[in-house]
Amino acid sequence: MAQTTPNHTQTVSGWAALEAGAKLTPYTFKRRENGIHDVTIQILYCGMCHTDIHYTRNDWGITTFPVVPGHEITGVIIKVGSEVSNFKVGDRVGVGCLAASCLECEFCKDSQENYCDAVQFTYNGIFWDGSITYGGYSKMLVADHRYVVHVPETLPMDAVAPLLCAGITVFCPMKDNNLIESTGKRLGIVGLGGLGHVAVKFGKAFGHHVTVISTSPSKEKEARERLGADDFILSTNAEQMQSKKRTLDFILDTVSAKHSLGPTLELLKVNGTLVIVGVPDKPIDLPSFPLIFGKRVVKGSMIGSIKETQEMMELCGKHNITCDIEVVTPDKINEALDRLANNDVKYRFVIDIAGKSPNL
Amino acid sequence: MAQTTPNHTQTVSGWAALEAGAKLTPYTFKRRENGIHDVTIQILYCGMCHTDIHYTRNDWGITTFPVVPGHEITGVIIKVGSEVSNFKVGDRVGVGCLAASCLECEFCKDSQENYCDAVQFTYNGIFWDGSITYGGYSKMLVADHRYVVHVPETLPMDAVAPLLCAGITVFCPMKDNNLIESTGKRLGIVGLGGLGHVAVKFGKAFGHHVTVISTSPSKEKEARERLGADDFILSTNAEQMQSKKRTLDFILDTVSAKHSLGPTLELLKVNGTLVIVGVPDKPIDLPSFPLIFGKRVVKGSMIGSIKETQEMMELCGKHNITCDIEVVTPDKINEALDRLANNDVKYRFVIDIAGKSPNL
Repeated sequence: MAQTTPNHTQTVSGWAALEAGAKLTPYTFKRRENGIHDVTIQILYCGMCHTDIHYTRNDWGITTFPVVPGHEITGVIIKVGSEVSNFKVGDRVGVGCLAASCLECEFCKDSQENYCDAVQFTYNGIFWDGSITYGGYSKMLVADHRYVVHVPETLPMDAVAPLLCAGITVFCPMKDNNLIESTGKRLGIVGLGGLGHVAVKFGKAFGHHVTVISTSPSKEKEARERLGADDFILSTNAEQMQSKKRTLDFILDTVSAKHSLGPTLELLKVNGTLVIVGVPDKPIDLPSFPLIFGKRVVKGSMIGSIKETQEMMELCGKHNITCDIEVVTPDKINEALDRLANNDVKYRFVIDIAGKSPNL
Repeated sequence: MAQTTPNHTQTVSGWAALEAGAKLTPYTFKRRENGIHDVTIQILYCGMCHTDIHYTRNDWGITTFPVVPGHEITGVIIKVGSEVSNFKVGDRVGVGCLAASCLECEFCKDSQENYCDAVQFTYNGIFWDGSITYGGYSKMLVADHRYVVHVPETLPMDAVAPLLCAGITVFCPMKDNNLIESTGKRLGIVGLGGLGHVAVKFGKAFGHHVTVISTSPSKEKEARERLGADDFILSTNAEQMQSKKRTLDFILDTVSAKHSLGPTLELLKVNGTLVIVGVPDKPIDLPSFPLIFGKRVVKGSMIGSIKETQEMMELCGKHNITCDIEVVTPDKINEALDRLANNDVKYRFVIDIAGKSPNL
């Protein structure tokens, strides 16, 4: 569709899955001209999110092919539209999951455009002009400036990239549940992957006691020594789970595989909150007993707004928080996706799109 | 066990299931002497709760037999202990699900003893003296006065009985979610049974717009004309469900059969809350998409505290709210349980334990 849209005149090189489950291959496509509200970005880095796998496999049955994945994008602005005042050529910027929203509903007006009913995503979305959106596994992006954030000068562009999705996804529920202003809460982070490892960093930076909950014994050393977690619970160990019942104030569940919430809920104190940010493609099992007997709360949270993303970026600059990444060249995308599917990465792959030095 | 506990000297007639799935039969057992903190209650009425079926069938694998069910008890005090100052002989009182708690933990001290980790229930619990508790399908009850409430003089004792479990179970989440002080919210009540019909009454009395959500088309007329609901959604009708997406502020899910929360969650506005008060014996299916994309909240809530139960009773007196009941004599208990299992009751069976007039 993009190719037939009148003003889509700019030729871009990228990487796409041409059909469900196909390997990604080099793919040339068109992007729109830079509009009055747009900025054009030379992409430097793009993080690889689990969501990219779901879309390329069409796990959710909603993918339009070819799909160019990627929504953890950092780069440098090379063009700005006439109505753009808060960005200039040369700015270091980031683009996350959002490409467009209605700009008129209560959520858009209240800087919660991620919950706009007409929200469109950075890839596999339908832009206002009817074109399919293509993501950051590509050399260049034209983005409406209202969905672009500034990257602090002190932070490296490669390790920042995953903050645009993984980071904001875990930051937002922490903010919503009052974990940025308060300190000394007991947090549990389920799953130590791309999302989980950033959540541990945020939890520690904000002054909380952080427990990592994982099915992998091998993660304990990592969690404690590399990321500074205070405690570790092996979730397959019934004795450990039992001994930690009713000890946590807040749990962030980052697991994207189908699982039962029951044992995890038992770890929460009465009135405790568990936020789900992973997106299993099968329903999660929610046993009513631990929910009801502990008056517990299960919430959903989806990424974050642009305003919140910018706020997170500033805090990351202040606390020097970035992601632990493994940089790959574009020819290794498929290998990296396979390893990602097997959770074989610490903790996020980032594609070196432009072949620049990591510290640009 | 009760029979071997030293001070269990009072003989009581009741009705018990002697083993899992057995019909209830007349059963004579012992209750403790009236202690210094106790009141002895001549039971007049006892509501029949779905939970009674789960326990007699041992659906949850936690029943000690023989089990004397019943935790929606009204009656008159016939004896008070020396340390009891807020009740006197002749008082019209109610006893719900709670028989004991530790009295020392943060929840007990904060009048949330229903979440005490050592809470014991009115039947199938273990009282402080080690005896098994027996419920209200019996002629007389010895209860610690700290778990007894006053019944307003203006309300009939039979139609009040189900308030002690069904009523408080739906009242508490409404109170917790600020639906008593505020008005004009859009509430959804899933399931129009013992709990649901009281929830509709509360919702209307507190000034809200109430929608009943049910799988039974036959419930629509009932919901609107008998109970005053403002709207009705047939949950099996995809078109109706679709047209009501994102319209409700709060949903109370009273269904105790296994079900998926997905379609129901879609009815909630962004940031909306669904409270689960039914207790399905299988895990509920919780699809992550509607939870995450709508930043929605799923909470559990278990009955309520004694303080909250008394508050509910006062409000019921003020608004003249009672349950719609069908009174049965004790010889019809099994027939009524069978009909209850088939949802064939409007809306709660109440056993006329003492054979008194309904308005005593």
